Amino acid sequence: MGPYGYPPGASAPGPGGVVRVNETMVCAVGNVATQPVYRDLASGASARFRLAVTSRYWDREKNTWTDGHTNFFTVWANRALATNVGASLSLGEPVIVQGRLKVRTEMRDGQSRTSAEIDAVAIGHDLARGTSAFRRSAGPPKGEASAPPRPEPSWETPVADEGGTGAQQRREPAAVT
Amino acid sequence: MGPYGYPPGASAPGPGGVVRVNETMVCAVGNVATQPVYRDLASGASARFRLAVTSRYWDREKNTWTDGHTNFFTVWANRALATNVGASLSLGEPVIVQGRLKVRTEMRDGQSRTSAEIDAVAIGHDLARGTSAFRRSAGPPKGEASAPPRPEPSWETPVADEGGTGAQQRREPAAVT
Amino acid sequence: MGPYGYPPGASAPGPGGVVRVNETMVCAVGNVATQPVYRDLASGASARFRLAVTSRYWDREKNTWTDGHTNFFTVWANRALATNVGASLSLGEPVIVQGRLKVRTEMRDGQSRTSAEIDAVAIGHDLARGTSAFRRSAGPPKGEASAPPRPEPSWETPVADEGGTGAQQRREPAAVT
Amino acid sequence: MGPYGYPPGASAPGPGGVVRVNETMVCAVGNVATQPVYRDLASGASARFRLAVTSRYWDREKNTWTDGHTNFFTVWANRALATNVGASLSLGEPVIVQGRLKVRTEMRDGQSRTSAEIDAVAIGHDLARGTSAFRRSAGPPKGEASAPPRPEPSWETPVADEGGTGAQQRREPAAVT
Repeated sequence: MGPYGYPPGASAPGPGGVVRVNETMVCAVGNVATQPVYRDLASGASARFRLAVTSRYWDREKNTWTDGHTNFFTVWANRALATNVGASLSLGEPVIVQGRLKVRTEMRDGQSRTSAEIDAVAIGHDLARGTSAFRRSAGPPKGEASAPPRPEPSWETPVADEGGTGAQQRREPAAVT
Repeated sequence: MGPYGYPPGASAPGPGGVVRVNETMVCAVGNVATQPVYRDLASGASARFRLAVTSRYWDREKNTWTDGHTNFFTVWANRALATNVGASLSLGEPVIVQGRLKVRTEMRDGQSRTSAEIDAVAIGHDLARGTSAFRRSAGPPKGEASAPPRPEPSWETPVADEGGTGAQQRREPAAVT
Repeated sequence: MGPYGYPPGASAPGPGGVVRVNETMVCAVGNVATQPVYRDLASGASARFRLAVTSRYWDREKNTWTDGHTNFFTVWANRALATNVGASLSLGEPVIVQGRLKVRTEMRDGQSRTSAEIDAVAIGHDLARGTSAFRRSAGPPKGEASAPPRPEPSWETPVADEGGTGAQQRREPAAVT
Repeated sequence: MGPYGYPPGASAPGPGGVVRVNETMVCAVGNVATQPVYRDLASGASARFRLAVTSRYWDREKNTWTDGHTNFFTVWANRALATNVGASLSLGEPVIVQGRLKVRTEMRDGQSRTSAEIDAVAIGHDLARGTSAFRRSAGPPKGEASAPPRPEPSWETPVADEGGTGAQQRREPAAVT
């Protein structure tokens, strides 16, 4: 099933997309915690990065706001969103992400491992933290009518190395238009 | 820090509550996957259960809806919500849960373990699946003005035994009003 | 187009349902502000009620929580959800509602009128406020495979009379199983 | 109470901010439908624009995706978010917006008028539609500790003229850093 464990494409309402109901949607505001990894596969573009979302709480004794718990997610993007993530996002930048939450538990080496992923529908730089200059994609027409059904992507890099491991994880500029 | 790893009470806007911002909220519709465990501690009531949320997708070839991925969450409830969860919810029942998502990663025996939890704000039986007869709590007045600040709860049962292990995890009827 | 202004059925993943993307979902916790109105039409059950959602804020000078703004929504339910809403919900009860937000603006008598509606996916009594006894519907099998495509409902009572007008708006017990 | 009808500032966790609970949060993905109006008031920056969010549904007979209902919201931004909205967003651009939903009903000229507003927490250009180049604000330190409590803004332009009225509604470049 590839790195997703389920058919990709749900976010894009094209003929090749998969339609789902009762997904648990999240909208998270945080920071890019690993340099986005971009791949231009035969099946289409794909990108991922780690997102750190830190809550804050009011400390009444100190009369100040204090950092609380940080949630980490692996964010996945497909197609045009993946291409633009690869061309636009860098480590540390503040973002807003909407997507389907996916809690995955799998056995590996006799251990169960859980990860929290977001299959992104939309991603943007958070204007509460800075300015952004936007440039619209030439891209396919609305509805992506020409997009054929896509097979599963096949990543070589496993999901687990979440910390990022340097150069080979950097996005490949050649793939970014 | 107890089983939560962070101060409890954020969901109740009482004087003892903790106020947070930038929490990642989720609203999940699924089924109670383990019998709720209820505790009546000196610090107040607390309850938890596992929630299974199954997405569905349209299988075009079979022309039918098919079960997709299932997300599992550990749902936590405090105070009045905990008491009423203990008195109302049973294994297998359909529910709607709103709360703060908490992805926790901790080291145990040299392994990192991730869990996905929801610190519930509201929980209800899903009327899409059946009827419910409601009975309002006598409870504290609006705002829970009389509630004192609460220390951390101290559970004896660790979070990890998610599958439920039978009798000792069943709610304690004596604690349920 | 009937009272909805758009095809009903999106919430039910049955063969007759309509699949949508990019809906603005909301999860609201509040109180039933008008007695639910239930109709058992040839096209299937439908119900609606007004929902009041009051935010609260911390008044630092008074050192207390105070009621803030109240959002009002018209909540719509279809099919099994409608039937169970009619049989379960009463004026004043606390509920949690998840659904698609619909902001409608229409011209009437030369005036534009805006309303905020929620096309409900799930509704439940809020266990933060009391207990509920659940009884599962006999209902159609999962997926509602036998449900035929449904035409638009045709309500006689217009949406606008939001305050509720007494007896004829009460749910019809005969229609509730 | 100014154009908001309630105390501003909830989105910024600074000492002058207002803390709220039980807000109805929305995360909407759509297009900027009116050129953002920016004001640099004594009380701080403020900006607003109309957001159009169009759902799409699968038309089985035509075997294609079709535009469904469009929700319109008035989006409000404060402080740094307002400044950056003024400097970054233009009519027609695709955005993702997270914030508190506010359904307001007020009497005007003997007519009740309802509007749907979003008090934005975060806004970003949608990378599903194009690329963005981000530039972090110099801005106040984290927590905006130096921000004093703010009085209500006092806009001269009423909320109602939603269509945008041309030049005087364009953002004032002088106010944008």
